[in-house]
Amino acid sequence: MIAGIAEILASGAAGPANPLAVPFGDDMAPLSPADPALLWTTDMLMDGVDFESARHAWRDIGRKAMAVNLSDCAAMGATPIAALCALALGDALRVEDALDIVRGAHECGLRYGCPIVGGDTNGWAAPTAIAITVAARMPPGLVPLRRDGARPGDRIFISGPVGGSLLGRHMTFEPRVELARQLSAALRPTAAIDVSDGLSLDLWRICEASGVGAELDANGLDAAIHADARTLAAQSGRSARAHALGDGEDFELIVTIGESRADEAVARFGLLPIGRIVAERGLRLRSTDGTLTPLEPRGWEHLR
Amino acid sequence: MIAGIAEILASGAAGPANPLAVPFGDDMAPLSPADPALLWTTDMLMDGVDFESARHAWRDIGRKAMAVNLSDCAAMGATPIAALCALALGDALRVEDALDIVRGAHECGLRYGCPIVGGDTNGWAAPTAIAITVAARMPPGLVPLRRDGARPGDRIFISGPVGGSLLGRHMTFEPRVELARQLSAALRPTAAIDVSDGLSLDLWRICEASGVGAELDANGLDAAIHADARTLAAQSGRSARAHALGDGEDFELIVTIGESRADEAVARFGLLPIGRIVAERGLRLRSTDGTLTPLEPRGWEHLR
Repeated sequence: MIAGIAEILASGAAGPANPLAVPFGDDMAPLSPADPALLWTTDMLMDGVDFESARHAWRDIGRKAMAVNLSDCAAMGATPIAALCALALGDALRVEDALDIVRGAHECGLRYGCPIVGGDTNGWAAPTAIAITVAARMPPGLVPLRRDGARPGDRIFISGPVGGSLLGRHMTFEPRVELARQLSAALRPTAAIDVSDGLSLDLWRICEASGVGAELDANGLDAAIHADARTLAAQSGRSARAHALGDGEDFELIVTIGESRADEAVARFGLLPIGRIVAERGLRLRSTDGTLTPLEPRGWEHLR
Repeated sequence: MIAGIAEILASGAAGPANPLAVPFGDDMAPLSPADPALLWTTDMLMDGVDFESARHAWRDIGRKAMAVNLSDCAAMGATPIAALCALALGDALRVEDALDIVRGAHECGLRYGCPIVGGDTNGWAAPTAIAITVAARMPPGLVPLRRDGARPGDRIFISGPVGGSLLGRHMTFEPRVELARQLSAALRPTAAIDVSDGLSLDLWRICEASGVGAELDANGLDAAIHADARTLAAQSGRSARAHALGDGEDFELIVTIGESRADEAVARFGLLPIGRIVAERGLRLRSTDGTLTPLEPRGWEHLR
């Protein structure tokens, strides 16, 4: 479906291909040809899919609806500036619940300089859906961190341990906006993405966009497994490594950085080195004895 | 609820009130303090509320989801430039249906210079919801047509006949983007809004925002009744005038214009004069013999 949408959006523009057209699924899109430093993104969160209103507080739900968009800004190295919020409110919602959605989203946005400035509020006899749109500006002199710039020889880093976010972090994560800004200025990453759907799936997206492959280092990967992944593994019967590779909604950043700046990435920014970009397409895991095993990109599929 | 949301958005900003804060429900909001000519808006359309997937083609549904946002641009006199589209797709939807939503929205946007440049696509076990966000730019030298500038003595116009849109026009209307641009440059309206929820309700919103009232002229109003309103009246048992005053989704523009430019509004732009702004708050209907009757603002309530 994403390919079909991309085709629709690329065609139909008068004359040459529309310079603004960016496929659905990119982290952010350019907003105005007159101002290429301005980007925007939108995310729809739905009850029973991205949150569960029976378990989560509406304020935390609103917070997440904002934070996933701010994470997209981080993935581009962009600074969020303002948001819109469109609500389809389930008819069982109380007014105070709806206000808590806005409150949670607005408070989260404000901490990143990104107030909600408008929106649309509706009721219906179905579960609640929340669509937040965020606009962001590239810091002067910096270009957006795209997915398609990774080159063979680049080192692959992740900004923090991943896996098991379902135990709670998927509702409470902090988007890596400030880290991305500093990283972007200091290390000029060649590509970046946030782990929204799963480490292996999101890394694979960088590889596909860049026309390259990746070798994950077993020791590096194991050092990037979150404690929650181990806890979840004890319940699920799957390995902690599988959870780290395939669980979504960690919202850490995957960045690829030229070899010469790899030491600084670790020493100054505490990034976790997990492997390197190679010319051969696909994902592989390199064990401590040098054996290479193919890795399937796994993660959350939005449409199944 | 809207008042509660406005309060949340106005508070919480550091220092003085956030200059970007615009209450939920305004036609568009400013996007960036660095570029006050840039505005944006979002609208969520839901199956069973704003369209019926059992009756309407998905391409027409996508078209409407774009067009309602473009109508918000018209209401501000702004020129649309780009859109994002977030989808929550019901699980009964075929891929081709989903693509038709995007196709309909993108084609409509392109005709107004407003391509879809990105978005978010999700599936769930609930009816389909479509949230489109549109960014727009004020033409050089023109200021946004707000709701709060109507002054006693201004004449009230509507850009075309209203009522009975449910018979079909709510899916097929053309947003008045180009008319608004020309009007804005030539006649400097003091206030404007699009008829999304109902002539009397939307006019009342101008009056409330401006701290004034309005007297509708019975002859002028009757000349602005759409033929569909008469057809619907024959079925509904309500009067054609009631349909013209209370039906939503006509997406014509209500504009208030200084007395001195009223003749030009009619002669050059074909606007329909329906009354005048007065100091006394509230809406009244002036019959041909001069009798004034109070009018209740009626229309579509998004939250009931």
